[in-house]
Amino acid sequence: MPDSLDTSGDRTVSELEEDGLVARLIERIGPPATNETWSGDDAAVLNPRAGKLLATVDGLIEGVDYDLRYMSAADVGWKAVMTSASDCAAMGGRPAHCLATVGLRHDTPLSFYDGVLDGMLEAAGALGMALVGGDITRARETSLTVSVLGYAQTPVYRSGASEGDTLCVTGSLGAAAAGLRALQGHIEIPARLEEAAARLKSRQIRPRARIEEGVALAERGATAMIDVSDGLGIDLGRLLRASGYGCEVDTARVPISEDVIAVAEQAAGLNPLELALAGGEDYELLAAVPEAFVDDARRALRELGCSLTSIGTVTVGEPRLGADPLEKWEKAGWDHLRHV
Amino acid sequence: MPDSLDTSGDRTVSELEEDGLVARLIERIGPPATNETWSGDDAAVLNPRAGKLLATVDGLIEGVDYDLRYMSAADVGWKAVMTSASDCAAMGGRPAHCLATVGLRHDTPLSFYDGVLDGMLEAAGALGMALVGGDITRARETSLTVSVLGYAQTPVYRSGASEGDTLCVTGSLGAAAAGLRALQGHIEIPARLEEAAARLKSRQIRPRARIEEGVALAERGATAMIDVSDGLGIDLGRLLRASGYGCEVDTARVPISEDVIAVAEQAAGLNPLELALAGGEDYELLAAVPEAFVDDARRALRELGCSLTSIGTVTVGEPRLGADPLEKWEKAGWDHLRHV
Repeated sequence: MPDSLDTSGDRTVSELEEDGLVARLIERIGPPATNETWSGDDAAVLNPRAGKLLATVDGLIEGVDYDLRYMSAADVGWKAVMTSASDCAAMGGRPAHCLATVGLRHDTPLSFYDGVLDGMLEAAGALGMALVGGDITRARETSLTVSVLGYAQTPVYRSGASEGDTLCVTGSLGAAAAGLRALQGHIEIPARLEEAAARLKSRQIRPRARIEEGVALAERGATAMIDVSDGLGIDLGRLLRASGYGCEVDTARVPISEDVIAVAEQAAGLNPLELALAGGEDYELLAAVPEAFVDDARRALRELGCSLTSIGTVTVGEPRLGADPLEKWEKAGWDHLRHV
Repeated sequence: MPDSLDTSGDRTVSELEEDGLVARLIERIGPPATNETWSGDDAAVLNPRAGKLLATVDGLIEGVDYDLRYMSAADVGWKAVMTSASDCAAMGGRPAHCLATVGLRHDTPLSFYDGVLDGMLEAAGALGMALVGGDITRARETSLTVSVLGYAQTPVYRSGASEGDTLCVTGSLGAAAAGLRALQGHIEIPARLEEAAARLKSRQIRPRARIEEGVALAERGATAMIDVSDGLGIDLGRLLRASGYGCEVDTARVPISEDVIAVAEQAAGLNPLELALAGGEDYELLAAVPEAFVDDARRALRELGCSLTSIGTVTVGEPRLGADPLEKWEKAGWDHLRHV
């Protein structure tokens, strides 16, 4: 590649020893913040910040959580950082630091490793957090595990919802699952909807954690919160079980991605509401907000360029989603769709 | 198994959904510390402690880092926690919390998962730290990644050694590598040395992080420190390169495990000094200590039941191990021995 700055060429990771791969990571990470030490010692040394410390970890495995036929290495790195950071968002906190464990096969191209680093650094930079270290392991399948450390002034748990709270969803749902089907070739999208299709695919491979939205909801009195990673049905069920309440949700108010609706009109096999309720991987936030605070929260999110939609109410009755028991939609969640 | 309390029987992890496996983890973790939230929400919520925050992660992959032919699931869980905690010890800090990512095949017995939890909880308890959460992923090979968070009042880096500092090693070296060879059947140990053989194997599969020893060395003026995970040659090289110095080491003073010496006298194919210098996985600490502080440090470690042996001096010359350039022993390190 004479015209490229890419120095990895066709080499495999086995040409560099673990220390060589770690050195490559250290070089990319760059200098640490003042009075901190990042990669290169036995552990990263960090300044604790104000607030409660949030810690979360998520692992992505090739062939299970990502497919290199339609995701680049950089997409994998981006998505791993974003999905872990989204867990901080769901607590109303900001991610600060992350560490990565990269599992590599002996014949993994060095360009894959470099791409994963690119994507992780890009995602971390987009959220104002730092990649501070990691571990390289030899494996028979590639994988990427990201641990994120964050801080929250007032963490919002899944368990804090009360009767009468309004259930609210940020942004829109269904796009990531529709994007997955498009990437997998399960649906055919007409050429004139090319831009919508591209946005759907991007929602699947380049999700974005709702960090500032989560902080704003926490500051404006959200009583319970969770990120919608496995589908609204499943994640709503988790929030309600943790809080010990039921719900009534008006499915007509569930915010469905406009791109999903546009594409579903032209492509067979897409049910927009089903994708919104059971699709997963949208990484929007579902929050319970006392009714009196909802307008204020909506205004705050609008200033961040994000919508906040009221979809229903926390009740002492059974959890219901439209005319159905919520359970029906929990069973129809992410895993089901994934194996279509 | 009518006589047993084991309820996992011959079931596989695929019989429980991810939520079921997480629920099993939550149950085992038990109630969190006051004002903390551990497993069961989007992220663990922890109280930051005094001092610098240490963060480190280590991944173990089946068939690469552990072999279930001679390690139990509980051994794997124990070792994963201890090796990550050892990174905190090497900074002069105490581990406080850990999170685990467990990769499971669909046909992994539930008893493996339970065993890994047993071993992690046992190791965490032995070090006064808490397992506070984790992530379960489906995979084609089992794996275990442990992130450890710790705190150090005055972190000790690899880079702080100065000319004239004494190089000191805790405990003794070579046992873990000899134990590995015994477990793999590469050496035959006479029955009358059964107890020594058992201790060697235990050093390999149940290593112990030198937490209090690391804190004591940090408090008594150690200028640089690293844990001996890949062999004294390799890890000494890392410390010296980070510090920008060379060394003279008297190989006759390197503390070799007495069990290794006893077994080597009876079993062909064991070179005690080679195992001590290039064997790895002993998780002892190598520290640079100003000469004036060495006696005090040695007394402090003796009170903890641990020896501290001076093996040489930090110099401005080339790094040397006995009559050889250190480089020779770096190349003879862990990877070499492992594939014998």
